[in-house]
Amino acid sequence: MDVDCGREEGMTAEKQKQVVGPGEFNVGVTALDHSHINGMVKGLVDAGATIQYVYDPDETKVRSFLEKFPGVEVAPSLDYILADDVIHLVAAAAIPNLRSELGNRVMRAGKDYFTDKTAFTTLEQLETTKQVVKETRQKLFVYFNERFNVEGALFAGRLIESGRIGEVIQITGFGPHRLRKESRPDWFFHQEQTGGILTDIGCHQIEQFLHLTGNVDAEIVHSKVGNYANPDYPEFEDYGDATLIGENGATLSFNEIGRAHV
Amino acid sequence: MDVDCGREEGMTAEKQKQVVGPGEFNVGVTALDHSHINGMVKGLVDAGATIQYVYDPDETKVRSFLEKFPGVEVAPSLDYILADDVIHLVAAAAIPNLRSELGNRVMRAGKDYFTDKTAFTTLEQLETTKQVVKETRQKLFVYFNERFNVEGALFAGRLIESGRIGEVIQITGFGPHRLRKESRPDWFFHQEQTGGILTDIGCHQIEQFLHLTGNVDAEIVHSKVGNYANPDYPEFEDYGDATLIGENGATLSFNEIGRAHV
Repeated sequence: MDVDCGREEGMTAEKQKQVVGPGEFNVGVTALDHSHINGMVKGLVDAGATIQYVYDPDETKVRSFLEKFPGVEVAPSLDYILADDVIHLVAAAAIPNLRSELGNRVMRAGKDYFTDKTAFTTLEQLETTKQVVKETRQKLFVYFNERFNVEGALFAGRLIESGRIGEVIQITGFGPHRLRKESRPDWFFHQEQTGGILTDIGCHQIEQFLHLTGNVDAEIVHSKVGNYANPDYPEFEDYGDATLIGENGATLSFNEIGRAHV
Repeated sequence: MDVDCGREEGMTAEKQKQVVGPGEFNVGVTALDHSHINGMVKGLVDAGATIQYVYDPDETKVRSFLEKFPGVEVAPSLDYILADDVIHLVAAAAIPNLRSELGNRVMRAGKDYFTDKTAFTTLEQLETTKQVVKETRQKLFVYFNERFNVEGALFAGRLIESGRIGEVIQITGFGPHRLRKESRPDWFFHQEQTGGILTDIGCHQIEQFLHLTGNVDAEIVHSKVGNYANPDYPEFEDYGDATLIGENGATLSFNEIGRAHV
Protein backbone atom coordinates (compact mmCIF):
# COMPACT_ATOMS: atom_id res chain seq x y z
CA MET A 1 0.00 0.00 0.00
CA ASP A 2 1.41 3.30 -1.04
CA VAL A 3 0.17 5.86 1.39
CA ASP A 4 3.07 8.27 1.25
CA CYS A 5 1.86 10.18 -1.75
CA GLY A 6 -1.25 11.55 -3.40
CA ARG A 7 -3.25 11.23 -0.24
CA GLU A 8 -3.24 13.16 3.00
CA GLU A 9 -1.39 11.20 5.66
CA GLY A 10 -3.49 10.35 8.63
CA MET A 11 -6.79 11.01 6.90
CA THR A 12 -7.66 7.35 6.57
CA ALA A 13 -7.17 6.37 10.17
CA GLU A 14 -9.84 6.12 12.78
CA LYS A 15 -10.40 9.30 14.74
CA GLN A 16 -8.13 9.41 17.73
CA LYS A 17 -9.28 10.48 21.15
CA GLN A 18 -7.41 13.39 22.73
CA VAL A 19 -5.49 11.97 25.66
CA VAL A 20 -3.78 15.19 26.85
CA GLY A 21 -4.82 18.81 27.09
CA PRO A 22 -2.98 21.93 25.75
CA GLY A 23 0.58 22.28 27.12
CA GLU A 24 0.49 18.88 28.79
CA PHE A 25 2.59 17.11 26.15
CA ASN A 26 4.91 19.33 24.12
CA VAL A 27 6.56 18.32 20.89
CA GLY A 28 9.47 19.61 18.85
CA VAL A 29 9.50 18.72 15.18
CA THR A 30 12.66 18.43 13.10
CA ALA A 31 14.17 16.66 10.06
CA LEU A 32 11.36 17.24 7.56
CA ASP A 33 13.06 15.05 4.94
CA HIS A 34 10.15 12.68 4.34
CA SER A 35 6.53 13.78 4.01
CA HIS A 36 5.56 11.14 6.55
CA ILE A 37 6.29 13.86 9.12
CA ASN A 38 2.90 15.36 8.29
CA GLY A 39 1.02 12.18 9.24
CA MET A 40 3.13 11.82 12.36
CA VAL A 41 2.42 15.38 13.53
CA LYS A 42 -1.26 15.11 12.62
CA GLY A 43 -1.50 11.99 14.77
CA LEU A 44 0.12 13.81 17.69
CA VAL A 45 -2.16 16.82 17.28
CA ASP A 46 -5.24 14.57 17.09
CA ALA A 47 -4.15 12.98 20.37
CA GLY A 48 -3.95 16.40 22.04
CA ALA A 49 -0.22 17.12 21.86
CA THR A 50 1.04 20.69 21.59
CA ILE A 51 3.45 21.27 18.70
CA GLN A 52 5.85 23.75 20.30
CA TYR A 53 8.63 24.09 17.73
CA VAL A 54 9.67 23.17 14.26
CA TYR A 55 13.24 23.27 13.01
CA ASP A 56 14.85 22.26 9.70
CA PRO A 57 17.88 23.80 7.97
CA ASP A 58 15.83 23.88 4.74
CA GLU A 59 13.50 26.90 4.91
CA THR A 60 11.32 25.63 2.08
CA LYS A 61 10.50 22.53 4.08
CA VAL A 62 9.70 24.66 7.13
CA ARG A 63 7.37 26.90 5.10
CA SER A 64 5.58 23.86 3.69
CA PHE A 65 5.21 22.46 7.22
CA LEU A 66 3.77 25.74 8.52
CA GLU A 67 1.14 25.72 5.77
CA LYS A 68 -0.16 22.45 7.22
CA PHE A 69 0.42 23.34 10.87
CA PRO A 70 0.15 27.13 11.15
CA GLY A 71 1.31 29.00 14.21
CA VAL A 72 4.09 26.62 15.24
CA GLU A 73 7.17 28.51 16.46
CA VAL A 74 10.22 28.16 14.22
CA ALA A 75 13.24 27.26 16.35
CA PRO A 76 16.71 28.53 15.33
CA SER A 77 18.33 25.11 15.80
CA LEU A 78 17.75 21.60 17.02
CA ASP A 79 19.85 22.41 20.10
CA TYR A 80 17.37 25.15 20.92
CA ILE A 81 14.57 22.58 20.99
CA LEU A 82 16.62 20.07 22.95
CA ALA A 83 17.55 22.69 25.55
CA ASP A 84 13.94 23.56 26.35
CA ASP A 85 12.72 21.67 29.40
CA VAL A 86 9.11 22.01 28.28
CA ILE A 87 9.66 19.57 25.38
CA HIS A 88 8.71 15.94 26.02
CA LEU A 89 9.20 14.43 22.60
CA VAL A 90 10.94 15.14 19.30
CA ALA A 91 9.27 13.94 16.10
CA ALA A 92 11.45 13.54 13.01
CA ALA A 93 11.52 12.04 9.53
CA ALA A 94 15.21 12.27 8.70
CA ILE A 95 17.02 10.57 5.85
CA PRO A 96 16.87 6.92 6.97
CA ASN A 97 20.56 6.36 7.73
CA LEU A 98 20.56 9.47 9.97
CA ARG A 99 17.53 8.50 12.05
CA SER A 100 19.39 6.45 14.62
CA GLU A 101 22.03 9.12 15.28
CA LEU A 102 19.41 11.86 15.56
CA GLY A 103 17.44 9.72 18.01
CA ASN A 104 20.51 9.11 20.15
CA ARG A 105 21.06 12.87 20.40
CA VAL A 106 17.39 13.50 21.23
CA MET A 107 17.24 10.82 23.91
CA ARG A 108 20.55 11.90 25.46
CA ALA A 109 18.97 15.36 25.80
CA GLY A 110 16.23 13.75 27.89
CA LYS A 111 13.44 13.72 25.31
CA ASP A 112 11.54 10.80 23.84
CA TYR A 113 11.96 10.21 20.09
CA PHE A 114 9.31 9.56 17.48
CA THR A 115 10.85 8.64 14.12
CA ASP A 116 9.53 7.72 10.72
CA LYS A 117 10.21 4.16 9.67
CA THR A 118 12.66 2.62 9.04
CA ALA A 119 14.39 3.63 12.25
CA PHE A 120 17.69 1.98 11.28
CA THR A 121 19.62 1.09 8.14
CA THR A 122 22.36 -1.00 9.75
CA LEU A 123 22.52 -3.49 12.61
CA GLU A 124 25.23 -1.35 14.21
CA GLN A 125 22.80 1.59 14.46
CA LEU A 126 20.23 -0.72 16.05
CA GLU A 127 22.70 -1.90 18.67
CA THR A 128 23.92 1.62 19.48
CA THR A 129 20.41 3.01 19.85
CA LYS A 130 19.33 0.04 21.98
CA GLN A 131 22.18 0.98 24.30
CA VAL A 132 21.11 4.65 24.34
CA VAL A 133 17.52 3.67 25.21
CA LYS A 134 18.86 1.53 28.04
CA GLU A 135 21.15 4.29 29.36
CA THR A 136 18.72 7.21 29.06
CA ARG A 137 15.49 5.31 29.82
CA GLN A 138 13.86 7.44 27.13
CA LYS A 139 11.27 6.01 24.75
CA LEU A 140 11.70 5.48 21.01
CA PHE A 141 8.61 5.16 18.82
CA VAL A 142 8.57 4.25 15.12
CA TYR A 143 5.84 5.47 12.76
CA PHE A 144 4.75 2.43 10.76
CA ASN A 145 2.10 4.31 8.83
CA GLU A 146 1.04 1.28 6.77
CA ARG A 147 -0.39 -0.27 9.92
CA PHE A 148 -1.50 2.79 11.88
CA ASN A 149 -2.87 4.94 9.09
CA VAL A 150 -4.36 2.47 6.62
CA GLU A 151 -7.98 1.44 7.04
CA GLY A 152 -7.45 -2.02 5.53
CA ALA A 153 -4.61 -2.77 7.93
CA LEU A 154 -6.63 -1.55 10.91
CA PHE A 155 -9.57 -3.69 9.82
CA ALA A 156 -7.38 -6.77 9.37
CA GLY A 157 -5.98 -6.23 12.84
CA ARG A 158 -9.47 -6.00 14.34
CA LEU A 159 -10.64 -9.13 12.51
CA ILE A 160 -7.68 -11.07 13.87
CA GLU A 161 -8.08 -9.70 17.41
CA SER A 162 -11.75 -10.68 17.40
CA GLY A 163 -10.76 -14.27 16.58
CA ARG A 164 -13.01 -14.35 13.54
CA ILE A 165 -10.35 -15.65 11.20
CA GLY A 166 -8.63 -18.02 13.61
CA GLU A 167 -4.93 -18.40 14.22
CA VAL A 168 -2.85 -16.58 11.64
CA ILE A 169 -0.24 -18.94 10.28
CA GLN A 170 0.63 -17.22 7.02
CA ILE A 171 0.70 -13.68 5.72
CA THR A 172 1.50 -12.61 2.18
CA GLY A 173 2.33 -8.94 1.75
CA PHE A 174 2.57 -6.70 -1.28
CA GLY A 175 4.20 -3.30 -1.13
CA PRO A 176 3.92 -1.64 -4.53
CA HIS A 177 5.11 1.96 -4.40
CA ARG A 178 4.96 4.71 -6.94
CA LEU A 179 8.44 5.58 -8.15
CA ARG A 180 7.90 9.29 -8.86
CA LYS A 181 11.51 9.82 -9.92
CA GLU A 182 10.98 13.52 -10.52
CA SER A 183 9.75 14.35 -7.05
CA ARG A 184 11.90 11.98 -4.99
CA PRO A 185 14.89 13.52 -3.22
CA ASP A 186 18.34 12.39 -4.27
CA TRP A 187 18.90 10.30 -1.12
CA PHE A 188 16.01 8.05 -2.13
CA PHE A 189 18.19 6.48 -4.83
CA HIS A 190 21.24 5.77 -2.70
CA GLN A 191 21.62 2.44 -0.98
CA GLU A 192 23.59 3.72 2.00
CA GLN A 193 21.00 6.37 2.78
CA THR A 194 17.84 4.24 2.52
CA GLY A 195 19.22 0.84 3.49
CA GLY A 196 17.67 -0.57 0.31
CA ILE A 197 14.09 -1.48 -0.60
CA LEU A 198 13.67 -4.28 1.96
CA THR A 199 14.88 -2.10 4.82
CA ASP A 200 13.15 1.09 3.82
CA ILE A 201 9.81 -0.35 2.69
CA GLY A 202 9.90 -4.04 3.60
CA CYS A 203 10.00 -3.04 7.27
CA HIS A 204 6.25 -2.31 6.94
CA GLN A 205 5.40 -5.88 5.97
CA ILE A 206 7.68 -7.32 8.62
CA GLU A 207 6.22 -5.08 11.33
CA GLN A 208 2.67 -5.96 10.29
CA PHE A 209 3.54 -9.66 10.27
CA LEU A 210 5.06 -9.51 13.77
CA HIS A 211 2.07 -7.59 15.10
CA LEU A 212 -0.67 -9.61 13.41
CA THR A 213 0.79 -13.00 14.28
CA GLY A 214 1.75 -12.03 17.84
CA ASN A 215 5.49 -12.49 17.35
CA VAL A 216 8.26 -10.31 18.76
CA ASP A 217 10.97 -11.85 16.60
CA ALA A 218 11.33 -13.78 13.36
CA GLU A 219 14.05 -15.37 11.27
CA ILE A 220 14.66 -14.03 7.77
CA VAL A 221 15.16 -17.25 5.83
CA HIS A 222 15.64 -15.68 2.41
CA SER A 223 15.55 -12.38 0.57
CA LYS A 224 16.33 -11.10 -2.91
CA VAL A 225 16.49 -7.67 -4.51
CA GLY A 226 16.85 -6.36 -8.05
CA ASN A 227 16.95 -3.34 -10.29
CA TYR A 228 14.83 -4.25 -13.30
CA ALA A 229 13.91 -0.95 -14.85
CA ASN A 230 16.09 1.82 -13.48
CA PRO A 231 19.60 1.53 -14.92
CA ASP A 232 19.94 5.32 -14.56
CA TYR A 233 19.97 4.77 -10.78
CA PRO A 234 22.38 1.85 -10.40
CA GLU A 235 22.19 1.72 -6.59
CA PHE A 236 18.40 1.76 -6.54
CA GLU A 237 16.44 -1.42 -5.89
CA ASP A 238 13.07 -1.43 -7.64
CA TYR A 239 12.23 -4.96 -6.54
CA GLY A 240 12.68 -7.05 -3.42
CA ASP A 241 11.08 -10.03 -1.76
CA ALA A 242 11.67 -11.97 1.42
CA THR A 243 10.34 -14.83 3.45
CA LEU A 244 10.37 -15.09 7.25
CA ILE A 245 9.41 -17.54 9.97
CA GLY A 246 8.16 -16.13 13.26
CA GLU A 247 9.08 -17.54 16.65
CA ASN A 248 5.66 -19.18 16.89
CA GLY A 249 5.99 -20.79 13.45
CA ALA A 250 3.79 -18.36 11.49
CA THR A 251 5.29 -17.56 8.13
CA LEU A 252 5.54 -14.46 5.94
CA SER A 253 6.24 -13.95 2.25
CA PHE A 254 6.18 -10.48 0.81
CA ASN A 255 7.44 -8.39 -2.05
CA GLU A 256 8.06 -4.72 -2.66
CA ILE A 257 7.93 -3.14 -6.08
CA GLY A 258 9.16 0.36 -6.87
CA ARG A 259 7.53 0.70 -10.24
CA ALA A 260 9.06 2.35 -13.22
CA HIS A 261 6.21 3.93 -15.10
CA VAL A 262 3.74 5.38 -12.64
CA MET B 1 -6.67 -22.52 -8.08
CA ASP B 2 -8.21 -25.76 -7.08
CA VAL B 3 -9.61 -27.31 -10.19
CA ASP B 4 -9.31 -30.94 -9.25
CA CYS B 5 -12.58 -31.17 -7.38
CA GLY B 6 -16.14 -29.95 -7.41
CA ARG B 7 -15.89 -28.92 -11.02
CA GLU B 8 -15.75 -30.91 -14.23
CA GLU B 9 -12.18 -31.00 -15.51
CA GLY B 10 -11.77 -29.49 -18.91
CA MET B 11 -15.08 -27.64 -18.82
CA THR B 12 -13.47 -24.27 -18.28
CA ALA B 13 -11.02 -24.40 -21.15
CA GLU B 14 -11.52 -22.92 -24.57
CA LYS B 15 -13.07 -25.28 -27.07
CA GLN B 16 -10.38 -27.23 -28.83
CA LYS B 17 -10.37 -27.83 -32.55
CA GLN B 18 -10.31 -31.46 -33.67
CA VAL B 19 -6.93 -32.03 -35.26
CA VAL B 20 -7.32 -35.73 -36.14
CA GLY B 21 -10.19 -37.89 -37.42
CA PRO B 22 -11.49 -41.21 -35.97
CA GLY B 23 -8.82 -43.91 -35.78
CA GLU B 24 -6.02 -41.55 -36.73
CA PHE B 25 -4.65 -41.14 -33.20
CA ASN B 26 -5.38 -43.97 -30.79
CA VAL B 27 -5.03 -43.77 -27.07
CA GLY B 28 -4.80 -46.29 -24.25
CA VAL B 29 -5.74 -45.06 -20.79
CA THR B 30 -4.36 -46.53 -17.57
CA ALA B 31 -3.55 -45.66 -13.94
CA LEU B 32 -6.80 -43.94 -12.96
CA ASP B 33 -5.41 -42.96 -9.55
CA HIS B 34 -6.09 -39.23 -9.83
CA SER B 35 -9.29 -37.74 -11.19
CA HIS B 36 -7.21 -35.50 -13.45
CA ILE B 37 -7.35 -38.43 -15.87
CA ASN B 38 -10.86 -37.30 -16.80
CA GLY B 39 -9.71 -33.85 -17.90
CA MET B 40 -6.78 -35.37 -19.76
CA VAL B 41 -8.98 -37.79 -21.69
CA LYS B 42 -11.62 -35.15 -22.37
CA GLY B 43 -8.91 -32.95 -23.87
CA LEU B 44 -7.75 -35.78 -26.12
CA VAL B 45 -11.32 -36.58 -27.19
CA ASP B 46 -12.01 -32.90 -27.92
CA ALA B 47 -8.90 -32.86 -30.14
CA GLY B 48 -10.23 -35.83 -32.13
CA ALA B 49 -8.29 -38.70 -30.53
CA THR B 50 -9.84 -42.17 -30.36
CA ILE B 51 -9.84 -43.70 -26.87
CA GLN B 52 -9.14 -47.33 -27.71
CA TYR B 53 -8.61 -48.97 -24.33
CA VAL B 54 -8.82 -48.41 -20.63
CA TYR B 55 -7.05 -50.55 -18.04
CA ASP B 56 -6.78 -50.30 -14.27
CA PRO B 57 -6.46 -53.12 -11.72
CA ASP B 58 -9.23 -51.40 -9.70
CA GLU B 59 -12.57 -52.25 -11.32
CA THR B 60 -14.40 -49.49 -9.45
CA LYS B 61 -12.16 -46.91 -11.08
CA VAL B 62 -12.73 -48.47 -14.50
CA ARG B 63 -16.52 -48.42 -14.01
CA SER B 64 -16.37 -44.76 -12.99
CA PHE B 65 -14.26 -43.99 -16.06
CA LEU B 66 -16.71 -45.77 -18.37
CA GLU B 67 -19.57 -43.68 -17.01
CA LYS B 68 -17.77 -40.61 -18.30
CA PHE B 69 -16.41 -42.19 -21.46
CA PRO B 70 -18.86 -44.94 -22.46
CA GLY B 71 -17.96 -47.56 -25.03
CA VAL B 72 -14.23 -47.64 -24.40
CA GLU B 73 -12.89 -51.23 -24.53
CA VAL B 74 -11.61 -52.53 -21.19
CA ALA B 75 -8.17 -54.09 -21.72
CA PRO B 76 -7.14 -57.09 -19.58
CA SER B 77 -3.72 -55.57 -18.75
CA LEU B 78 -1.38 -52.72 -19.50
CA ASP B 79 0.79 -55.13 -21.52
CA TYR B 80 -2.21 -55.79 -23.73
CA ILE B 81 -2.42 -52.07 -24.52
CA LEU B 82 1.33 -51.75 -25.03
CA ALA B 83 1.38 -54.71 -27.38
CA ASP B 84 -1.19 -53.23 -29.75
CA ASP B 85 0.49 -51.46 -32.66
CA VAL B 86 -2.57 -49.27 -33.22
CA ILE B 87 -1.89 -47.35 -29.98
CA HIS B 88 0.04 -44.07 -30.36
CA LEU B 89 -0.13 -42.74 -26.84
CA VAL B 90 -0.82 -43.88 -23.28
CA ALA B 91 -2.52 -41.43 -20.92
CA ALA B 92 -2.13 -42.04 -17.19
CA ALA B 93 -2.62 -40.40 -13.79
CA ALA B 94 -0.68 -42.80 -11.56
CA ILE B 95 0.36 -42.19 -7.96
CA PRO B 96 3.04 -39.49 -8.44
CA ASN B 97 6.13 -41.51 -7.48
CA LEU B 98 5.12 -44.20 -10.00
CA ARG B 99 4.61 -41.89 -12.97
CA SER B 100 8.21 -41.90 -14.16
CA GLU B 101 8.53 -45.68 -14.10
CA LEU B 102 5.23 -46.15 -15.90
CA GLY B 103 6.31 -43.67 -18.55
CA ASN B 104 9.60 -45.45 -19.08
CA ARG B 105 7.69 -48.69 -19.69
CA VAL B 106 5.24 -46.99 -22.07
CA MET B 107 7.96 -45.27 -24.09
CA ARG B 108 10.09 -48.40 -24.27
CA ALA B 109 7.04 -50.10 -25.82
CA GLY B 110 7.13 -47.46 -28.57
CA LYS B 111 4.24 -45.27 -27.37
CA ASP B 112 4.20 -41.63 -26.39
CA TYR B 113 3.28 -40.89 -22.76
CA PHE B 114 0.85 -38.33 -21.40
CA THR B 115 1.01 -38.09 -17.61
CA ASP B 116 -0.70 -36.06 -14.98
CA LYS B 117 1.55 -33.61 -13.16
CA THR B 118 3.87 -33.89 -11.32
CA ALA B 119 5.71 -36.25 -13.64
CA PHE B 120 8.50 -36.91 -11.14
CA THR B 121 9.00 -36.97 -7.39
CA THR B 122 12.79 -37.36 -7.34
CA LEU B 123 15.67 -36.00 -9.42
CA GLU B 124 16.76 -39.61 -10.08
CA GLN B 125 13.42 -40.33 -11.78
CA LEU B 126 13.85 -37.21 -13.90
CA GLU B 127 17.32 -38.26 -15.03
CA THR B 128 16.24 -41.82 -15.82
CA THR B 129 13.22 -40.73 -17.85
CA LYS B 130 15.27 -38.11 -19.71
CA GLN B 131 17.53 -40.99 -20.75
CA VAL B 132 14.54 -43.09 -21.85
CA VAL B 133 13.16 -40.22 -23.95
CA LYS B 134 16.59 -39.86 -25.56
CA GLU B 135 16.89 -43.59 -26.27
CA THR B 136 13.35 -44.23 -27.47
CA ARG B 137 12.76 -40.86 -29.18
CA GLN B 138 9.21 -41.03 -27.80
CA LYS B 139 7.42 -37.96 -26.50
CA LEU B 140 6.46 -37.25 -22.91
CA PHE B 141 3.71 -34.75 -22.17
CA VAL B 142 2.70 -33.47 -18.73
CA TYR B 143 -0.84 -32.33 -17.96
CA PHE B 144 -0.50 -29.01 -16.12
CA ASN B 145 -4.22 -28.49 -15.78
CA GLU B 146 -3.88 -25.20 -13.91
CA ARG B 147 -2.51 -23.62 -17.06
CA PHE B 148 -4.35 -25.55 -19.77
CA ASN B 149 -7.78 -25.87 -18.19
CA VAL B 150 -8.24 -22.68 -16.21
CA GLU B 151 -9.79 -19.68 -17.90
CA GLY B 152 -7.88 -17.15 -15.78
CA ALA B 153 -4.54 -18.74 -16.63
CA LEU B 154 -5.39 -18.84 -20.33
CA PHE B 155 -6.44 -15.21 -20.25
CA ALA B 156 -3.24 -14.17 -18.43
CA GLY B 157 -1.21 -16.01 -21.06
CA ARG B 158 -3.02 -14.22 -23.88
CA LEU B 159 -2.58 -10.82 -22.23
CA ILE B 160 1.15 -11.43 -21.90
CA GLU B 161 1.50 -12.77 -25.47
CA SER B 162 -0.28 -9.71 -26.82
CA GLY B 163 2.29 -7.48 -25.12
CA ARG B 164 -0.42 -5.51 -23.32
CA ILE B 165 1.19 -5.85 -19.90
CA GLY B 166 4.81 -5.51 -20.97
CA GLU B 167 7.72 -7.67 -19.93
CA VAL B 168 6.86 -9.96 -17.03
CA ILE B 169 9.52 -9.61 -14.35
CA GLN B 170 7.64 -10.94 -11.33
CA ILE B 171 4.91 -13.47 -10.70
CA THR B 172 3.29 -14.22 -7.37
CA GLY B 173 1.35 -17.47 -7.23
CA PHE B 174 -1.20 -18.83 -4.77
CA GLY B 175 -2.22 -22.48 -4.78
CA PRO B 176 -4.88 -23.02 -2.12
CA HIS B 177 -6.29 -26.52 -2.33
CA ARG B 178 -9.18 -28.12 -0.56
CA LEU B 179 -7.95 -30.77 1.81
CA ARG B 180 -10.93 -33.16 1.61
CA LYS B 181 -9.35 -35.66 3.99
CA GLU B 182 -12.27 -38.06 3.72
CA SER B 183 -12.15 -38.44 -0.04
CA ARG B 184 -8.40 -38.32 -0.62
CA PRO B 185 -6.68 -41.65 -1.21
CA ASP B 186 -4.15 -42.83 1.35
CA TRP B 187 -1.15 -42.08 -0.90
CA PHE B 188 -2.03 -38.38 -0.84
CA PHE B 189 -0.75 -38.16 2.75
CA HIS B 190 2.60 -39.88 2.24
CA GLN B 191 5.66 -37.84 1.39
CA GLU B 192 7.37 -40.53 -0.65
CA GLN B 193 4.35 -41.03 -2.88
CA THR B 194 3.52 -37.37 -3.61
CA GLY B 195 6.96 -35.80 -3.35
CA GLY B 196 5.50 -33.25 -0.91
CA ILE B 197 3.34 -30.18 -1.43
CA LEU B 198 5.89 -28.18 -3.44
CA THR B 199 6.52 -31.06 -5.86
CA ASP B 200 2.94 -32.23 -6.20
CA ILE B 201 1.19 -28.85 -6.34
CA GLY B 202 3.97 -26.24 -6.53
CA CYS B 203 4.93 -27.63 -9.94
CA HIS B 204 1.87 -25.78 -11.31
CA GLN B 205 3.15 -22.38 -10.22
CA ILE B 206 6.66 -23.15 -11.41
CA GLU B 207 5.44 -24.34 -14.80
CA GLN B 208 3.22 -21.28 -15.21
CA PHE B 209 6.12 -19.03 -14.24
CA LEU B 210 8.48 -20.62 -16.76
CA HIS B 211 5.87 -20.42 -19.50
CA LEU B 212 4.63 -16.90 -18.81
CA THR B 213 8.11 -15.39 -18.44
CA GLY B 214 9.60 -17.29 -21.37
CA ASN B 215 12.13 -19.23 -19.30
CA VAL B 216 13.16 -22.85 -19.75
CA ASP B 217 15.01 -23.06 -16.45
CA ALA B 218 15.10 -21.31 -13.09
CA GLU B 219 17.02 -21.50 -9.86
CA ILE B 220 15.12 -22.34 -6.67
CA VAL B 221 16.66 -19.90 -4.22
CA HIS B 222 14.57 -20.85 -1.21
CA SER B 223 11.66 -23.00 -0.13
CA LYS B 224 9.93 -23.93 3.10
CA VAL B 225 7.19 -26.38 4.06
CA GLY B 226 5.13 -27.02 7.16
CA ASN B 227 2.35 -29.05 8.72
CA TYR B 228 0.29 -26.53 10.69
CA ALA B 229 -3.05 -28.21 11.16
CA ASN B 230 -2.80 -31.92 10.38
CA PRO B 231 -0.92 -33.69 13.17
CA ASP B 232 -2.94 -36.83 12.38
CA TYR B 233 -0.99 -37.05 9.10
CA PRO B 234 2.58 -36.40 10.23
CA GLU B 235 4.11 -36.77 6.76
CA PHE B 236 1.65 -34.43 5.15
CA GLU B 237 2.64 -30.88 4.27
CA ASP B 238 -0.30 -28.48 4.43
CA TYR B 239 1.84 -25.43 3.66
CA GLY B 240 4.74 -24.62 1.40
CA ASP B 241 6.27 -21.60 -0.28
CA ALA B 242 9.21 -21.01 -2.56
CA THR B 243 10.99 -18.31 -4.47
CA LEU B 244 12.76 -18.74 -7.81
CA ILE B 245 14.81 -16.71 -10.27
CA GLY B 246 14.47 -17.52 -13.97
CA GLU B 247 17.38 -17.55 -16.39
CA ASN B 248 16.27 -14.18 -17.77
CA GLY B 249 16.08 -12.64 -14.29
CA ALA B 250 12.29 -12.79 -13.84
CA THR B 251 11.35 -13.81 -10.34
CA LEU B 252 8.65 -15.97 -8.76
CA SER B 253 7.27 -16.22 -5.25
CA PHE B 254 4.43 -18.59 -4.53
CA ASN B 255 2.74 -20.50 -1.80
CA GLU B 256 0.57 -23.57 -1.57
CA ILE B 257 -1.94 -24.17 1.18
CA GLY B 258 -3.67 -27.47 1.84
CA ARG B 259 -6.37 -26.19 4.14
CA ALA B 260 -7.66 -27.96 7.18
CA HIS B 261 -11.32 -27.05 7.40
CA VAL B 262 -12.78 -26.96 3.91
